[in-house]
Amino acid sequence: MDEPVVLTGAGGRVGTAILEGIGEAYDWRLFYHSHPDEVLVDGEVIVGDVTEEEKVRELVEGAGAVIHLAGDPRPEAPWDSVLDNNIHGTKVIMEAAAEAGVEKVAYASSNHAVGAFETDERTPEMYRPEDEFRLDGSEFPRPSNLYGVSKATGEVLGRYYYDHSEMDVVSVRIGNLTRGHPPKEYERGQAMWLSYRDCAHLFDRCLQADYEHAIVYGISDNERKYYSLESAREVLGYDPQDDSAEFTFEGEPKDAQ
Amino acid sequence: MDEPVVLTGAGGRVGTAILEGIGEAYDWRLFYHSHPDEVLVDGEVIVGDVTEEEKVRELVEGAGAVIHLAGDPRPEAPWDSVLDNNIHGTKVIMEAAAEAGVEKVAYASSNHAVGAFETDERTPEMYRPEDEFRLDGSEFPRPSNLYGVSKATGEVLGRYYYDHSEMDVVSVRIGNLTRGHPPKEYERGQAMWLSYRDCAHLFDRCLQADYEHAIVYGISDNERKYYSLESAREVLGYDPQDDSAEFTFEGEPKDAQ
Repeated sequence: MDEPVVLTGAGGRVGTAILEGIGEAYDWRLFYHSHPDEVLVDGEVIVGDVTEEEKVRELVEGAGAVIHLAGDPRPEAPWDSVLDNNIHGTKVIMEAAAEAGVEKVAYASSNHAVGAFETDERTPEMYRPEDEFRLDGSEFPRPSNLYGVSKATGEVLGRYYYDHSEMDVVSVRIGNLTRGHPPKEYERGQAMWLSYRDCAHLFDRCLQADYEHAIVYGISDNERKYYSLESAREVLGYDPQDDSAEFTFEGEPKDAQ
Repeated sequence: MDEPVVLTGAGGRVGTAILEGIGEAYDWRLFYHSHPDEVLVDGEVIVGDVTEEEKVRELVEGAGAVIHLAGDPRPEAPWDSVLDNNIHGTKVIMEAAAEAGVEKVAYASSNHAVGAFETDERTPEMYRPEDEFRLDGSEFPRPSNLYGVSKATGEVLGRYYYDHSEMDVVSVRIGNLTRGHPPKEYERGQAMWLSYRDCAHLFDRCLQADYEHAIVYGISDNERKYYSLESAREVLGYDPQDDSAEFTFEGEPKDAQ
């Protein structure tokens, strides 16, 4: 991609994983909510809020793609915050991107958009390798909290702006992104683990592939899983390298022992 | 149902159809946005806004069911209005209903939540009797406008509160409710026509049936249709009596000629 790539929420965990992994590969416009202490890559730095319409219009002007991560990231965030930062903020950035003629938008949805599939009847069995329950992205959202409601609404906005503009839009239901491997006894975290390098590769594919409109799951190729990777593989060409089963309790690769 | 039934948006078109048809069958609490000139049935009248949390809590206290119609009804409504009145308002009323232990919530979604299925390639053929394209409620929303985005978000909220409370929640994607029959040349309107009496019967079923969680289409049994009635029939026991094909251009029943 020759045009600049806008990254909102550049200071967050997902933004960090992306910049560490593919920071050299693009011409970034980095949007931070507050002035960053450290910027991981060369790139234009803009500080502001995704709800500032005029600033957002300038941010996306002439950009080729937008990776939209900004928002209140707390699963327990109160409604007023997710209504404004996540729902309204996502509308503002997607509308600006559509009007600016941006080619691709990758939107950070969340496992919390579908967290209520994890019912008492299904857990903890659904977190285990032998369990065959899978979500594949064709199911309606079942949010686990109001944050999840806001993320599911962002998916609806993505569909709306895909249908009413020239942009491709992909919503990535991101699992449990952690730099180290989650503890073995945290079965849910293991099942939805997304490694930093797989995260960077996944969003690289979101900048490269032609997907029209898609909803995919973003996890590593874990032995334990209840999210299907089929859609991300087929639609994006996602090819994850990590598997939570290959790490010991301490988070070291097994073959390093 | 012995407990009172809350009807928000009582002064609107859907509210009018409901009160004309089943006004005598329930003990109503009628919620109006402004003081009504005329109230169609006996019942408690409350004037306010669904975003007024304290007032809404009092409104639903001790109620057995809520029919939630209130909101900005304009397909062309601006984002700020649907964000506040439709998205935030629906959250306020559903949360209050969940906390009050209400048994059932019937939520007025809209054909605009799925209006972008009506693509240039499919229309006008999809509006015609011989066309077999059907939406059945299992498809993701594809809103035709920001009003439709807000309605689809209400469906997400309905799912969320169903999963996190004891309430049954049904979202009704209401078609084209008109007292008279839409003109013959308005094929889309014919295909999604909902007569006043079928509308009242449909919401009666929403107060009587045990549906857990459902998304259904609300139209009459039109010869032309692209919404399946299967889900409403099966889940709610909906048994529509009208068919737009049985009316002449003037809106009179054919057998009355």
